[in-house]
Amino acid sequence: MTQILRMSALYAPTLKEDPSDADIDSARLLLRAGMLRKAASGLYTFLPLGFRVLKKIENIVREEMDASGAQEILMPVLQPAELWEESGRLNDYGPELMRLVDRHDREMCLGPTHEEIIVALVRNELRSYKELPQNLYQIQTKYRDEIRPRFGLLRSREFVMKDAYSFNATQESLQETYDAMGKAYGTICDRCGLDYREVEADGGQIGGKVTCEFMALADSGEADLVYCSCGYAADAEAGACLARPTVHEVDAMEKIATPGVHTIAELAAFLNIPESSTVKALSGKDAEGNLVCVFIPGDHELNELKIEGVVPGFTLLTDEEMISFGLCKGSMGPVGLPEGARVIASKSLSAIPQWVVGANEDGYHYVGARLGEDFRVDEWADLAVVKPGDCCPKCGLPLEGARGIEVAQIFQLGDRYSRAMGATFMDEDGEEKPFIMGCYGVGISRTLAAIVEQHNDEHGIKWPLSVAPAHICVVPLTVGDEEVQPMAEKIAKDLSELGFEVVIDDRDERAGVKFNDADLIGWPVQIVVGKRGLKEGKVEVKLRRTGEKKEVALDALAEMMSFARRAMRDNTLHGAGTGAFAAIFG
Amino acid sequence: MTQILRMSALYAPTLKEDPSDADIDSARLLLRAGMLRKAASGLYTFLPLGFRVLKKIENIVREEMDASGAQEILMPVLQPAELWEESGRLNDYGPELMRLVDRHDREMCLGPTHEEIIVALVRNELRSYKELPQNLYQIQTKYRDEIRPRFGLLRSREFVMKDAYSFNATQESLQETYDAMGKAYGTICDRCGLDYREVEADGGQIGGKVTCEFMALADSGEADLVYCSCGYAADAEAGACLARPTVHEVDAMEKIATPGVHTIAELAAFLNIPESSTVKALSGKDAEGNLVCVFIPGDHELNELKIEGVVPGFTLLTDEEMISFGLCKGSMGPVGLPEGARVIASKSLSAIPQWVVGANEDGYHYVGARLGEDFRVDEWADLAVVKPGDCCPKCGLPLEGARGIEVAQIFQLGDRYSRAMGATFMDEDGEEKPFIMGCYGVGISRTLAAIVEQHNDEHGIKWPLSVAPAHICVVPLTVGDEEVQPMAEKIAKDLSELGFEVVIDDRDERAGVKFNDADLIGWPVQIVVGKRGLKEGKVEVKLRRTGEKKEVALDALAEMMSFARRAMRDNTLHGAGTGAFAAIFG
Repeated sequence: MTQILRMSALYAPTLKEDPSDADIDSARLLLRAGMLRKAASGLYTFLPLGFRVLKKIENIVREEMDASGAQEILMPVLQPAELWEESGRLNDYGPELMRLVDRHDREMCLGPTHEEIIVALVRNELRSYKELPQNLYQIQTKYRDEIRPRFGLLRSREFVMKDAYSFNATQESLQETYDAMGKAYGTICDRCGLDYREVEADGGQIGGKVTCEFMALADSGEADLVYCSCGYAADAEAGACLARPTVHEVDAMEKIATPGVHTIAELAAFLNIPESSTVKALSGKDAEGNLVCVFIPGDHELNELKIEGVVPGFTLLTDEEMISFGLCKGSMGPVGLPEGARVIASKSLSAIPQWVVGANEDGYHYVGARLGEDFRVDEWADLAVVKPGDCCPKCGLPLEGARGIEVAQIFQLGDRYSRAMGATFMDEDGEEKPFIMGCYGVGISRTLAAIVEQHNDEHGIKWPLSVAPAHICVVPLTVGDEEVQPMAEKIAKDLSELGFEVVIDDRDERAGVKFNDADLIGWPVQIVVGKRGLKEGKVEVKLRRTGEKKEVALDALAEMMSFARRAMRDNTLHGAGTGAFAAIFG
Repeated sequence: MTQILRMSALYAPTLKEDPSDADIDSARLLLRAGMLRKAASGLYTFLPLGFRVLKKIENIVREEMDASGAQEILMPVLQPAELWEESGRLNDYGPELMRLVDRHDREMCLGPTHEEIIVALVRNELRSYKELPQNLYQIQTKYRDEIRPRFGLLRSREFVMKDAYSFNATQESLQETYDAMGKAYGTICDRCGLDYREVEADGGQIGGKVTCEFMALADSGEADLVYCSCGYAADAEAGACLARPTVHEVDAMEKIATPGVHTIAELAAFLNIPESSTVKALSGKDAEGNLVCVFIPGDHELNELKIEGVVPGFTLLTDEEMISFGLCKGSMGPVGLPEGARVIASKSLSAIPQWVVGANEDGYHYVGARLGEDFRVDEWADLAVVKPGDCCPKCGLPLEGARGIEVAQIFQLGDRYSRAMGATFMDEDGEEKPFIMGCYGVGISRTLAAIVEQHNDEHGIKWPLSVAPAHICVVPLTVGDEEVQPMAEKIAKDLSELGFEVVIDDRDERAGVKFNDADLIGWPVQIVVGKRGLKEGKVEVKLRRTGEKKEVALDALAEMMSFARRAMRDNTLHGAGTGAFAAIFG
């Protein structure tokens, strides 16, 4: 039997009004529900109810990590800067790395991630292939000095993360650990009640070529992603773009006066054709300063990561540079480019025989510019940001689009850190080899925010059972009443003995206040005990998720609830437990 | 059933040799047992087994805090310096406060304690006496930039603490919370298997006049404490000193040539009397620079905190200052002091009619200097550091002395922070009043080290059951043997199903290596499964605490163990569970 929570004693100051500085639903609701408070820019305090949710998510993550064979450790947050010099990241990481100097003038930093510390930990102690693989994890406060902290827990400066690091002897072994982590992360998302996609992603500051993000779908998410019914999904920043440009066919190339037309939108409107029938031109230079002209489908955007992969050091030209190269801003095109220009275009355009493009003359465009005849392309590449409607690279069907919150990411690091820091083991063949590493992160406080983003309505939060601060709230309508109060206490006690986490709203407040707070805080099940109902031997059971209400006879309640308790145990092992009470309302 | 740990997969690199930089038993043993690693000066990583112990201590603390009605929250580690300016501590705290500047040049610090943050948290939300008392706690990583980090976890720069803060309406209510916390802390120490004393202490940087420390007795402890069989105990820095000076009686005051005698030890030896029959003289000045002469029993030391209380701003004179006041170093005494000198002496000396003191002349001392006749004393006060043999201020019996490790402290803060930071509530009488506060800390990582200091022998650690990384280690002597291995696995599985946490040493190592590691790591119970024993249907059960061994028949093992399991459940609720297996060896 767990302790019964009492609203009269609980530190859960709910707010009647939306706080003025909440810029996202999760922050707004967590603040209003008395679960979270802002201590300073990007710094939050979890109040008792918010902390309970945080712990539940942490425990789900811990259980799944332990089940996967990973072992929990705790590394210091404070790290010597020397280690970051060894790995080469001290400068690379930039101003998001929180730095300080200790009283002996030694440079330190607050860990945003722990590759350096853990490689230094194992490099003299894991000696043989026989001791591999190892997968070590920790659940800890991490730091990132965001330039503009916002969106509550989503872009805070101090946050709770689970980070794991695997040390493998071979790529095959890494792949196994990576797959096991991916599976564990899927289970974690399921158990937290998240609607998510596992998407192809980019390594970012951590590094690593094979990497995958777990995105909780939410309109408020900062990431664009595409996905397909075949199972494929990708971060829009990382996904391959198979655009579907359309042809605007004409008999011959024609130069058209397009006065005042400088953008794709203006051009498409002027010609009355879809944007997908136009070609967007971008001019840049490579690391040596040579001219590079880039053409992509008119309805797409250039992907900076991709062009950097094709032309290392690529930067867009300034207006002055364009003029000095003899280019025309707003009317650039492939016909009649300066001698020596390197011309690169999106692969998808190779199937388009006639292009609608700028004429390299202010106020003029071409229609029907013929590929291979009127102009040349030197290279074809994947250059554009993928978007909904593009072809799925796996099955060819049109992709769906969504926005997402990144709650977790897994990386195959390879030997990037172990090689830089000299962390080797003795392989079966007697050779010293650098560890093959992977790293695997779950944003615990981010997951909490993502859950709220997905589970709320105009009244407040709707916690999945698996992470709710408590399962059931018993609401006596008239505190002090000699029938209502003892019956509410009895019900709370009985439910608690069944193994439910129970809160009783024993405050001397009006029913309306209690109902509003119960919905705002988001207790999954509410049992209302009132004078009138008790006369007929009944209480009202309400399901927060659906809003369903049902009058239940007192003598049926216990049996119903023990049935729900069994269903919940089973449900929360395989998901968020959301259906456990369905039978009552069936 | 909890997961069975396997030594073959566990990251627990034990060391054969003592690490060279371990300056205390707990650090040495935790490093050797593969539970802890140093990441940098004063920064440690808890490896899987060390982490398990840390979590167990954390959970004991959490259970006792929750049982006391306190509510868990999580505040940010990173704190804006402005709040510390508000409380007035930003400068007071000195270089031990870790400071940094964020990317927007805002001053921040890493919390060593959270009075400022929590007062700022509640000051606009706890409004009425009806909402009081509240006691909020967190378990978190804390920081102190120690000038010389040492003694492993005892003086580290990053450490795990539980800190609680209570907000009360009245002093009586604070006293209740304070007493409840004291009781909870006693239970926590008991459950962790600590031999401890609850001692009167000093407020230090936190402030507060009523405060009490929980000291784990250990010769390696940094604190001196005194205690009495009546229950009284005090930190030597804080305890009242009722010294027992002795009289060296002579017929009349006599000036004696004491060539070369400058210290109390030399004087006592020269006169062949105990040091307690001499009087120690110290000369200092008050904040205005006036001369203050202090006399204490010869066998005691001046307590700087106490003299500061009597003479604010008191500092000892330099040699030059003594000369300028006409004083004689090494032979100072109360007879013939300069006009206007303020003369203060230990209360205990007021009962001594004749003093052995310096003669204010190099190479001379007086014996039989008569109080009130040959010299005067202006004030009597408690000035000396208490030491073993002094009288207990509660019952008068001679005090015992010990050294201790401070594992916890409770403070009555009063309104020191709430007044400075303007944190008030509306009292029953309609008046705005500052909160009466208390704060209550437990050093979680310190407690871990203190447990090891108290529970070890030449072979390694002897964990109390309540905090052991696992309860039972099953040791198959010959891995791969077709009888031994399956039987060891079966025993491990059966014990795990009984609810024990079980580890199996399935490494292909010699028996000696396994026994040594088992004792070093300190599993409370070891079950050795060998070929010879199995032939007679027996295994060997060993109790790490006492070293007792017993051959147990396989068919008796299950019953014995379920008996022990029940005893353990009961034991660990009220103590460290150390006796749970006693019956087996009875």
